[in-house]
Amino acid sequence: MEHEAEFLLEYNQKVELINEWLENVVPQAEGDCIALYKALRYSLFAGGKRIRPVIAMAVCEMLGGDVEQVMPFACAIELIHTYSLIHDDLPAMDNDDLRRGQPTCHKKFDEATAILVGDALQALAFEIMSRSEINPIIVLECIRTVATAAGGDGMVGGQIRDIGGCEDAELHNKMNNLKTGALIMASAWMGALVGKAAIEDYRPIGIYAQSLGIAFQVKDDILDVEGNAEKLGKKTGQDSVTDKITYVSHMGLDRAKDYLLELTDNCKDEIAIFGEKSFFLQDLATYLYERDN
Amino acid sequence: MEHEAEFLLEYNQKVELINEWLENVVPQAEGDCIALYKALRYSLFAGGKRIRPVIAMAVCEMLGGDVEQVMPFACAIELIHTYSLIHDDLPAMDNDDLRRGQPTCHKKFDEATAILVGDALQALAFEIMSRSEINPIIVLECIRTVATAAGGDGMVGGQIRDIGGCEDAELHNKMNNLKTGALIMASAWMGALVGKAAIEDYRPIGIYAQSLGIAFQVKDDILDVEGNAEKLGKKTGQDSVTDKITYVSHMGLDRAKDYLLELTDNCKDEIAIFGEKSFFLQDLATYLYERDN
Repeated sequence: MEHEAEFLLEYNQKVELINEWLENVVPQAEGDCIALYKALRYSLFAGGKRIRPVIAMAVCEMLGGDVEQVMPFACAIELIHTYSLIHDDLPAMDNDDLRRGQPTCHKKFDEATAILVGDALQALAFEIMSRSEINPIIVLECIRTVATAAGGDGMVGGQIRDIGGCEDAELHNKMNNLKTGALIMASAWMGALVGKAAIEDYRPIGIYAQSLGIAFQVKDDILDVEGNAEKLGKKTGQDSVTDKITYVSHMGLDRAKDYLLELTDNCKDEIAIFGEKSFFLQDLATYLYERDN
Repeated sequence: MEHEAEFLLEYNQKVELINEWLENVVPQAEGDCIALYKALRYSLFAGGKRIRPVIAMAVCEMLGGDVEQVMPFACAIELIHTYSLIHDDLPAMDNDDLRRGQPTCHKKFDEATAILVGDALQALAFEIMSRSEINPIIVLECIRTVATAAGGDGMVGGQIRDIGGCEDAELHNKMNNLKTGALIMASAWMGALVGKAAIEDYRPIGIYAQSLGIAFQVKDDILDVEGNAEKLGKKTGQDSVTDKITYVSHMGLDRAKDYLLELTDNCKDEIAIFGEKSFFLQDLATYLYERDN
């Protein structure tokens, strides 16, 4: 990536702002409900990349919007994402002991706590959004966007397909579009809503987010085959052990890599219509393309 | 109860309206996501009493509000309540096999499905509210009310205290106020918000809902001791087997019964300020006092 240092500086500044906001919106672990908020903060501050809120912020800024206004929505999407990881890791689901090299929520605490922390995070996401003081019509649009993306016709719909097993590549792609794509799309959409996008802006922003969502999963599947377990903070080669359909298993490694490059170029081409204001989002696509964890 | 037939007629009409609305807001079990919606509808239409939405409707009507306007919010609270029962029944939580005489969601389907159905129901609750077309300020107030009541400082906060075990009567009462009381209070609040309550209306409505919420749990605890297992659709005597603190265990059966009567009278006295328009809510308190399941 050209200008990598500048990109990383801006990326890290965004992550810092998100973490500051999250610190403020999530109650401290104290009082007689310490168990819940301790576990909640453990999972929320476990070193996630904050990609979804970064997208919401970057889209909003690209359109000339006020980044402070998008923050409650950016935080909300990160809370939803975090809850989904906690529930996904549960023994009845993926049964994962480690996440980013650390014990998963139910391993560190217990299963009941992990279920309830996920439930509380989802409620908190909607509470934070409902407390935003910008135009109520836009707030409601954002809430509708997140609720739809998170629910049975979005992320949870993807998860139920995932546990049901996807018999073929088509179902796998649809599952992934819902499970990973829906929240990434919602992040971009909220950036557009708060940034007061013009009608014609939605199409390129939508295509950017959709391509980025697919690219993200293709990269994950590639990293599972040739990534470094230490950098990833989890075992590699798990997909072939569990005989899971992945982009690599149904396309082969080489074609998956070509597809990843194609998707990344597509992201950049679409968003380039916004000129130099889109440089950060273009670089973000490259960054996710090149990432090793 | 005087005029029991009239009360039951009105109660059942309300339940019918709720069920019609729920039928419309919950997607049919079809297409490639049949597993999720099949399980979701199984739990949602398992014969619940719909007390929370009935309260929202009755408060709204008492204030002269349009019942159709409160329906999305009444449905939302029922979806939240249903999700909480599904997660509460999970093996890691209460590990219940039966609910209203039928297999619980994770018994009928599986644990992963039950977790995801609960997650989807919570998202759907917020989606439905966000689609309401009444004054956006009121919609946002309702969303904030539900999110706060459902989250870590409300219902989920009560559940985490419940699984942690409540060492004394004070903690038990607080736990119960959160676990059961918060959603009942939110139901009344939404009825008040949509029914455009005057500022001075909130206090009596709030006291009514708070007393009703406690009364509801006291009655549950009494039924666990002297109720009929067949009518209840679940085993009785479970609280003493599990050595749980209940109103009966910390007050004794006789004092718990006195307390129940006192709370019920308190409900009726408070709401009587609204005159004959409050008859239904007064009768509802009596009905819940007299219920045998």
